[in-house]
Amino acid sequence: MSNSNNKLDYSVILVEPKIEGNIGAIARLCNNFEANELVLVSPLVNHLTTETRNRAKHSITYLEKAKIRKSINEIRDDYSILIGTSAKAGKTYNVLRQPVYPWNLEEIIVPTDCKIGLVFGREDRGLSNDELELCDFLVSIPTPGQLRVLNISHAVAIILYVFWKKSTDIEIINQEEISSTYKERKLLISLFNKITDSLSYEEYRKPIVKHTFRTVINRSFPSKEEIHSMIGIFKTMLQQNIDFSNGD
Amino acid sequence: MSNSNNKLDYSVILVEPKIEGNIGAIARLCNNFEANELVLVSPLVNHLTTETRNRAKHSITYLEKAKIRKSINEIRDDYSILIGTSAKAGKTYNVLRQPVYPWNLEEIIVPTDCKIGLVFGREDRGLSNDELELCDFLVSIPTPGQLRVLNISHAVAIILYVFWKKSTDIEIINQEEISSTYKERKLLISLFNKITDSLSYEEYRKPIVKHTFRTVINRSFPSKEEIHSMIGIFKTMLQQNIDFSNGD
Repeated sequence: MSNSNNKLDYSVILVEPKIEGNIGAIARLCNNFEANELVLVSPLVNHLTTETRNRAKHSITYLEKAKIRKSINEIRDDYSILIGTSAKAGKTYNVLRQPVYPWNLEEIIVPTDCKIGLVFGREDRGLSNDELELCDFLVSIPTPGQLRVLNISHAVAIILYVFWKKSTDIEIINQEEISSTYKERKLLISLFNKITDSLSYEEYRKPIVKHTFRTVINRSFPSKEEIHSMIGIFKTMLQQNIDFSNGD
Repeated sequence: MSNSNNKLDYSVILVEPKIEGNIGAIARLCNNFEANELVLVSPLVNHLTTETRNRAKHSITYLEKAKIRKSINEIRDDYSILIGTSAKAGKTYNVLRQPVYPWNLEEIIVPTDCKIGLVFGREDRGLSNDELELCDFLVSIPTPGQLRVLNISHAVAIILYVFWKKSTDIEIINQEEISSTYKERKLLISLFNKITDSLSYEEYRKPIVKHTFRTVINRSFPSKEEIHSMIGIFKTMLQQNIDFSNGD
């Protein structure tokens, strides 16, 4: 299950799964698509039962080695990028839920050491806003039919297929590039937000522009060097106390 | 479940499914991705049980309206194009099993009236060679992991996702184009095969070139007009009794 170079390192993280068959089926998919590991966040059922093993087929190792964690918060720093998944379509009044689509991932450039966590929410209720807030961005699989919600293992199948396909033709930055961490990006984003807040600008647009900036930054899988270079310029702006509100 | 213009018309055909949960899960996927209909070829279990209904969720209509048929042969003429699916990688000694990959479907141009049947084989044994022979071509989902075989409902999820995605950006020939039928293409292919047979050419290569021609033709989703124009020229070659073997 280890990751070699020139391959995306993605893990599957299930939040409070409650159907044993789904856990087993998803272990099998991890094996099919060479996910790094399976992580279960506060699972509501035992993940090592006859049912989970039957559904996992020859992929019981993924079940046995599954990491059990308490919250997304606890695993946040284990991953360079956490990608939330959602069946819910974005509405402008809930910018957190503005998703990208699987095909938007086509142009991403990923540093070789980038550890990606793919977060799938509860079978019935998905991810909470607090959990989404900890994700770097949100991917949604659009479905045209009347029944919009995919079974969770089908969502995992499609996302793993898309990620694996990307990993076969993705442009991987040379190894000197190191993936930025959540904390580094958070610092950059907080600087941007401070600047935004200092502007005279329609108030209702501010949360949207902040979210957009954050999402765009995160989706580019920026390297440590890139983030630090941006932190530098944003810090400078703030330190030099430019009065944006009076500029014209 | 009817098909409007500018949308691909695809149906899901399961050959001898034997796990009730899979049938139910696939009915749900038909609903998620607006498949035209679900067809069960000689199912080995009842498709209207508590288990199939539970897994189908709000998609019981697809189960209730499922067509039950005896063989692929019986439904062959109901579809313009039958696409077989296979987990087995192609080997050159079995040209029938040479698959295309989902992303090879990107450049296809589909006449608006084209009815596509997506054929999924048995959970354990896939499709027989006779069944593959009745398909126009074969699509395979490659998986990088040690466990190569996807659960059937996961294979359906990925293929339906790919087809639905195609249908949103596919180039659809204007409505005057009418899809060719299996019989029309068969006539063209038999003409090509006769010509091939009449050639002096390494014998072991002939089955391969025939299969290639057939696959390439089928994969282009040719219109009636295109097929007839090719039939015309190939017929002419044969009628004029060109002695290919002596050409130099």
